Amino acid sequence: MSRPLNVEEYREQLLAGLEPLPPRQLPLAECLGLVSAASISAHIDVPVFTNSAMDGFAVHAADVASAHPDRPVVLEVTGEVPAGSYSDLWVGDGQAVRVMTGAPLPAGADAVVPVEQTDQPVGAAPLPAQVAITGSVAEGAHIRLSGEDLREGAEVLASGTLLTAAALASAAATGHGTLSVHPRPRVAIIATGAELVEAGQPLDRGQIPDSNSVLLRGLAVDAGADPVFVTRCSDEAADLDAAIGEALQHADVVVTTGGVSAGTHDVVKNSVTASQLSFTKVAMQPGKPQAHGRLTSPDGRTVPLLALPGNPVSVFVSWFNFVVPVLDRLAARPATPGPRPGMAGADWSSPEGRRQYIPVKVLDDGSVVPAHQLGSGSHLIGSLSLADALAIIPAEVTQVHAGDEVQVLEIGARR
Amino acid sequence: MSRPLNVEEYREQLLAGLEPLPPRQLPLAECLGLVSAASISAHIDVPVFTNSAMDGFAVHAADVASAHPDRPVVLEVTGEVPAGSYSDLWVGDGQAVRVMTGAPLPAGADAVVPVEQTDQPVGAAPLPAQVAITGSVAEGAHIRLSGEDLREGAEVLASGTLLTAAALASAAATGHGTLSVHPRPRVAIIATGAELVEAGQPLDRGQIPDSNSVLLRGLAVDAGADPVFVTRCSDEAADLDAAIGEALQHADVVVTTGGVSAGTHDVVKNSVTASQLSFTKVAMQPGKPQAHGRLTSPDGRTVPLLALPGNPVSVFVSWFNFVVPVLDRLAARPATPGPRPGMAGADWSSPEGRRQYIPVKVLDDGSVVPAHQLGSGSHLIGSLSLADALAIIPAEVTQVHAGDEVQVLEIGARR
Repeated sequence: MSRPLNVEEYREQLLAGLEPLPPRQLPLAECLGLVSAASISAHIDVPVFTNSAMDGFAVHAADVASAHPDRPVVLEVTGEVPAGSYSDLWVGDGQAVRVMTGAPLPAGADAVVPVEQTDQPVGAAPLPAQVAITGSVAEGAHIRLSGEDLREGAEVLASGTLLTAAALASAAATGHGTLSVHPRPRVAIIATGAELVEAGQPLDRGQIPDSNSVLLRGLAVDAGADPVFVTRCSDEAADLDAAIGEALQHADVVVTTGGVSAGTHDVVKNSVTASQLSFTKVAMQPGKPQAHGRLTSPDGRTVPLLALPGNPVSVFVSWFNFVVPVLDRLAARPATPGPRPGMAGADWSSPEGRRQYIPVKVLDDGSVVPAHQLGSGSHLIGSLSLADALAIIPAEVTQVHAGDEVQVLEIGARR
Repeated sequence: MSRPLNVEEYREQLLAGLEPLPPRQLPLAECLGLVSAASISAHIDVPVFTNSAMDGFAVHAADVASAHPDRPVVLEVTGEVPAGSYSDLWVGDGQAVRVMTGAPLPAGADAVVPVEQTDQPVGAAPLPAQVAITGSVAEGAHIRLSGEDLREGAEVLASGTLLTAAALASAAATGHGTLSVHPRPRVAIIATGAELVEAGQPLDRGQIPDSNSVLLRGLAVDAGADPVFVTRCSDEAADLDAAIGEALQHADVVVTTGGVSAGTHDVVKNSVTASQLSFTKVAMQPGKPQAHGRLTSPDGRTVPLLALPGNPVSVFVSWFNFVVPVLDRLAARPATPGPRPGMAGADWSSPEGRRQYIPVKVLDDGSVVPAHQLGSGSHLIGSLSLADALAIIPAEVTQVHAGDEVQVLEIGARR
């Protein structure tokens, strides 16, 4: 075992040469939260055709220049264009065509008079033979010009765009039904430990509920990944090797918990897979023992495996420090924001020689205090839900005092 | 039609008497992002039993008080306790039992010596007959006491807690496999308009791509809702009534787009359902024409229907102003944060008498500028993906100047 790495050095090992997942062409409904792998341009003008911005009558603006409530201008109504249809009607001098919002502007017309500026009722009504216009409109009034939003051929989304709902709507509006994206990373989660029992099931002596797979499943969703395979396995190496084998069929990244430390039954260390992993000590608390490697799936994909320690708070801290950066890279997302400066709102101690990541509550005044009176103990799962963030204490600091500046890492869900 | 309402008045109408969805008991894996409907207490102590915090040997601290690398203390090894098992071994004077991290502490022992403080190798090794201890430990060292994190009966999660991954892990660790939650609101989305064609499909004359249902599906997911039913329908009232009928079977809230304005073919207005809706003008731009009502599902549930206007930017603004508050209420979530103060980074105009909600980009200096040179035009979907936020301009302001303070509403995804 070589010297302990710091968090940044280990993260660099995890990311070295790691490429985003190969692009796939997916329907828009499956692209939310993903990153585009190619720029797209408008296949069509937006608006597609020059159309009416109001419910009303398409006219010649010059014909209604003198219109006034006291001196209405009466035009002949020669037809109508509902939205979704079109018309080859020509609007000649003294003529009007009834139009709905969004309907193509009939040829010849150069303005739309809103129905509220006529003698016609708002809403459903038979097509009149004539319409009395009670107000003038400028040339071009209430008309949306073809291409005034975006021209055919203009770039709509750059490659590398995070696909929000609005971005997907823009793609739809410009003629796209699918997009080339880096797909959502599929995560396999394997909680190791003979003591683990499914949450909510009765416990025998020596057993505890498996909270790690519950935690990781939720964190994976929050990180924009898809937890496709979630399982527990015993401390028998053959069980773990079998679980990893199955995980490799389904997942883009495999995360295990437990079995990486100094025990004689530490299953990750004892597995056949261990020969493909590097075991490392990281100078952080909790979460010191870590392992990682790059495995190969049956269909030839390179699949990173991150073996986290087994204590729940270690899992939590390791997730934000190591797994999220790997998922960001696979999804081609920009790196999750790092820590921000904050202030300690209480005194607490920190181990010498290891950087502490302690779950904290953010108080109303913005200061942070440990979420649990026992501090950063790696087994304090019962109270982890109280934590809003992780405070980061440098390796050389052994005592934090209220009022000290500390770095604070937010842990909220992101897309 | 009565006088226009302001945004707050209309929102109040939408929320009046609206109750959260009735609680359901769901497995933890389905609870992420939901709000708990009942407090839960720990069914078990956490830790469940007093256990070893290290891989090593359970001993009497007094036996190893003099241990030193130069003067090791040799103890008899009487057995071992791997994690997940238990032992009825008694650790007597001069004895040690090998233990793994997390394993129950055998009776009689009062401390654990880490394997690194012994003559034994780290990792897999046969159980030795004796162990030489090379360092002393204090009484209680490397032991986690039963219940030191949480005691059986202690409150774990209050009613009304937003269920993060950590909260679900806390529930699992305290003996819960399911939780009483307000379920995820199921949203039906109906985009009306004879001109609409599925995104990516060829267009006939007068047709445009349906971007609204793409937009709403994504916004629904971002708001923590489940878009269970997404469809388009023509401008025929019977089609819309049929679509609403189907939506009511599946959804907790129905959102329609289009057909609520002044046109003769406005389908929501012409539908049978219209008799159960209130049509309102809201003094905002875009998004003035709105309608809403409370319908009844075939199985007797009250289902809010929100009929939004059809222009994409109107849909977008209406979503944040009106649909999100309804979803928050149904899910029993605290209200989404309101606008924050910001600064205009450019000049732009705003309509008189209506509050403007204009899609803006947030620049590096924190100021906001319109996402499109045409401002808040309700049809500017092609460029909506550039918007980071909505700037809110009061009804009485007609001209915004660079440097003016403006209210800014964030539009990012939340859980």
